[in-house]
Amino acid sequence: MPLVELHVLEGYNPEEKQKLGTALTNAVRFVVPAAPELVTVLIHDIPADNYYRGGEQRIPAPARADPVEIVKDYLTAMEDRDLEKARAMLGGGFTMTFPGTAPMHSLEELIEWSKPRYKFVTKTYEGFDAMQGSGAAAIVYCRGTLQGEYHDRRRFGGIRFIDRFEITDGKITKQEVWNDMAEVKTNA
Amino acid sequence: MPLVELHVLEGYNPEEKQKLGTALTNAVRFVVPAAPELVTVLIHDIPADNYYRGGEQRIPAPARADPVEIVKDYLTAMEDRDLEKARAMLGGGFTMTFPGTAPMHSLEELIEWSKPRYKFVTKTYEGFDAMQGSGAAAIVYCRGTLQGEYHDRRRFGGIRFIDRFEITDGKITKQEVWNDMAEVKTNA
Amino acid sequence: MPLVELHVLEGYNPEEKQKLGTALTNAVRFVVPAAPELVTVLIHDIPADNYYRGGEQRIPAPARADPVEIVKDYLTAMEDRDLEKARAMLGGGFTMTFPGTAPMHSLEELIEWSKPRYKFVTKTYEGFDAMQGSGAAAIVYCRGTLQGEYHDRRRFGGIRFIDRFEITDGKITKQEVWNDMAEVKTNA
Amino acid sequence: MPLVELHVLEGYNPEEKQKLGTALTNAVRFVVPAAPELVTVLIHDIPADNYYRGGEQRIPAPARADPVEIVKDYLTAMEDRDLEKARAMLGGGFTMTFPGTAPMHSLEELIEWSKPRYKFVTKTYEGFDAMQGSGAAAIVYCRGTLQGEYHDRRRFGGIRFIDRFEITDGKITKQEVWNDMAEVKTNA
Amino acid sequence: MPLVELHVLEGYNPEEKQKLGTALTNAVRFVVPAAPELVTVLIHDIPADNYYRGGEQRIPAPARADPVEIVKDYLTAMEDRDLEKARAMLGGGFTMTFPGTAPMHSLEELIEWSKPRYKFVTKTYEGFDAMQGSGAAAIVYCRGTLQGEYHDRRRFGGIRFIDRFEITDGKITKQEVWNDMAEVKTNA
Amino acid sequence: MPLVELHVLEGYNPEEKQKLGTALTNAVRFVVPAAPELVTVLIHDIPADNYYRGGEQRIPAPARADPVEIVKDYLTAMEDRDLEKARAMLGGGFTMTFPGTAPMHSLEELIEWSKPRYKFVTKTYEGFDAMQGSGAAAIVYCRGTLQGEYHDRRRFGGIRFIDRFEITDGKITKQEVWNDMAEVKTNA
Repeated sequence: MPLVELHVLEGYNPEEKQKLGTALTNAVRFVVPAAPELVTVLIHDIPADNYYRGGEQRIPAPARADPVEIVKDYLTAMEDRDLEKARAMLGGGFTMTFPGTAPMHSLEELIEWSKPRYKFVTKTYEGFDAMQGSGAAAIVYCRGTLQGEYHDRRRFGGIRFIDRFEITDGKITKQEVWNDMAEVKTNA
Repeated sequence: MPLVELHVLEGYNPEEKQKLGTALTNAVRFVVPAAPELVTVLIHDIPADNYYRGGEQRIPAPARADPVEIVKDYLTAMEDRDLEKARAMLGGGFTMTFPGTAPMHSLEELIEWSKPRYKFVTKTYEGFDAMQGSGAAAIVYCRGTLQGEYHDRRRFGGIRFIDRFEITDGKITKQEVWNDMAEVKTNA
Repeated sequence: MPLVELHVLEGYNPEEKQKLGTALTNAVRFVVPAAPELVTVLIHDIPADNYYRGGEQRIPAPARADPVEIVKDYLTAMEDRDLEKARAMLGGGFTMTFPGTAPMHSLEELIEWSKPRYKFVTKTYEGFDAMQGSGAAAIVYCRGTLQGEYHDRRRFGGIRFIDRFEITDGKITKQEVWNDMAEVKTNA
Repeated sequence: MPLVELHVLEGYNPEEKQKLGTALTNAVRFVVPAAPELVTVLIHDIPADNYYRGGEQRIPAPARADPVEIVKDYLTAMEDRDLEKARAMLGGGFTMTFPGTAPMHSLEELIEWSKPRYKFVTKTYEGFDAMQGSGAAAIVYCRGTLQGEYHDRRRFGGIRFIDRFEITDGKITKQEVWNDMAEVKTNA
Repeated sequence: MPLVELHVLEGYNPEEKQKLGTALTNAVRFVVPAAPELVTVLIHDIPADNYYRGGEQRIPAPARADPVEIVKDYLTAMEDRDLEKARAMLGGGFTMTFPGTAPMHSLEELIEWSKPRYKFVTKTYEGFDAMQGSGAAAIVYCRGTLQGEYHDRRRFGGIRFIDRFEITDGKITKQEVWNDMAEVKTNA
Repeated sequence: MPLVELHVLEGYNPEEKQKLGTALTNAVRFVVPAAPELVTVLIHDIPADNYYRGGEQRIPAPARADPVEIVKDYLTAMEDRDLEKARAMLGGGFTMTFPGTAPMHSLEELIEWSKPRYKFVTKTYEGFDAMQGSGAAAIVYCRGTLQGEYHDRRRFGGIRFIDRFEITDGKITKQEVWNDMAEVKTNA
């Protein structure tokens, strides 16, 4: 106790069920202070033949792509400057906000903005937090440290950053970025 | 469909059940791309007399305090410089990291750090994201903008920030802060 | 076995639950040839606080008026020539078809049609069959015998009839009538 | 919501489950005015190994033959004057009542009765209504129009009819017929 | 896991539910080697209005009297030589078998049999084991030691005994007794 | 009604499920005086992929060996004087008590004790009663009659006995024996 029973149309794979098991367990624990090992989740797979809504059978929808994986793929594509791949991952109405910028709407704007700031930058990840919001978007946080090289060939590293993403229907629709780059430069 | 049934010991109030309803709905939607209005949550309250684990009755635990409310109360106490109240909300092993700082362990360190930076600062909230992590801690994100006054009486405002909190057993055990203050100062 | 569990929002009264118990039992028996005493129905009343669809509470709808009672009230009003009461029970697009008539749309047409046929007529009921159709309408059959008086003062009786009604949102939208009146007259 | 869960012994085929899905949905809607697309039916197939009554396994009974199909087959056999086939479909204690007749007990009586009335008759179906009654019998209504030829070679058509059948253990045990034939003849 | 859900008609009291909780937990553990604290029992009380078998409501039966209590009361009455009370607790067809006796049918026979053996005897209980058999009878084992006095005024004590009882419909229908009295006497 | 639903990890075979069906039925009947054929048990096999405790999958434990079979095998081994086999069935802390003995700890002690008493003895079984106790041990009662041969070549038979066993983790940890042997000898 507490016990969660989930009835879903048959068709989700073990990895997707594990994600459901984890998400439902944590959803309960958000309110009920039960030790995790006392929270049980049972999934009941319902064959399509055995489920009727309004007297009609329904087709199970394939599981959502994991929003954390989407974010990781996008960040890798950006580090690799594979703009074509990254662009294909953006949804309609995409905006991104970086320290000191107004919302930008294309990756080209970002490239322009970053050009004077550093020659290149890569990310070391410390952790991801992900959740479905009450609206359409899933929210993914990614935090860690930046390292790279300024145009004067000085190296930098260990600069804290955090990104917040919104993913809607498998596409990134919003990216917000905070980091300590200016702080570090100021104090350098 | 999908349908979630939650069996819990009787004793949660309507507000707590609403939070369970929302959290369980979003947990399912994190994996299953169902329209929200097709995700159903049923809560079955089980009287203590009707629940046995190992053949023994169990006492329901009171619901966790809402971690978002804990964070809001803490941030208000800090804005009000009510250090006593804020300190009472911190858990063992508390650390906080601000732009350019190493992890600090007491509010006094923070006050020292901030003294040369600004006379005062207040927060305008844009949004909160909260979730139970797989470990003991709940995670709360708070984002928005800062406004306040520097020591030279200049006012500032609209500076983006984001805070990440970990709350364990109702106490804040970790605070991490990112903001654009240095970026803004640099460009000022 | 078979076992039916019905989860509904709390608020239905014992009489309405008995009707659900009967209707669900017979729905199963329509396909599964179980002895009635082996068909079990459990109703789980879900308090509004314990039910969420799309993360939101929902208000239970009051039970439908019993369509058989609607039909009985209407037939009584017609026997009593209480046209005002009967007319108030008709829904939009109402049609009625009697032996040898095209579909009529008002009670006045019926009165005109029946005038030359008999002075008055009353009904003795033998049985009602009622069911929800797959569309919006509930269907009620009423059968029995007619008795009354012709204009030449001859009495008649024992004439078989059957009426088929459609009831939509508590209003009668269709009435179809068959009976042996012409047959009896022909043979008289 | 409402949600119906049906637990039955494994062994029903998709078509039989669809009939259960429809019948249970309509049983709920007979009392609860929910939009059809909000009525959910889940069927849980229970393997024989997983079901015990009185501590003993039970054998699932094959589904009932569809009573509407039984009625259609019977009516076709009668139109074809295939009395042998039709007779095989009748159950013990069978009675049939036609306009102006007392209850008849054999198809031969019906043939005798109809001989002077018409040379042949066929049916055009407008609709069927079927339900399990609370007793042993399923009830099937069939309505539509008759066409055929009188002995004087005049054709007739468009004559409204309705039949009510009772089907017990897969056999027809009662047939009642109403139609406008006399009405039409009288007015012809 | 394992999880047992019991649906019963409302009306059992907390003590009776505790007995159900214990009995169901042990029933599962008889086959499944789960640690007791991982066996969960949920009892769902079903109000009479919410339960239909064959479309009809059913009245909950009062819980059985605890067969262990029945046995204790009977043994106390026998120790007190309250034969009237003890006799009232016996069911039809009662038999009792003591060491070296054929089945006896009345308490008087037992008194006769015991007269030459000892002046009086009392029991010290070590433990009871009780279970419902697959037939009508519950089975209760009672074991411990006997003490008392022989006719020659010698005291005895610590003599092992075990009784097996069958209780049907709240009445004792069978008693079988084994003990070491003869063994002890032989060796004395 | 009553209805028991058992959710267990998939993997138990039909024989083990039958034992669960019987044990759960009798557990309910121990308290609720329902006719056996009205007690229903449904077993829901949960695939390992569909069960999470603390967000983690769990491995189903193999069913316990049937404690009645263990007792039968042990008693057969003892009759056959196959001490090696019998000894392998004993658990740590094993004790056994026979009429007039203090608790013994090894089969050798028993052999010594029985030597002067009879040349050999075999058992005819009348019945077994078995149940899981609330502690770790399952309890098995075995009763019937003894037959065999004394050292003076006299045969004996029909001597009532009862054994009580405790079985923990598949091993016999306690055996207690009562019988009428001394009674019979005394009276012989």
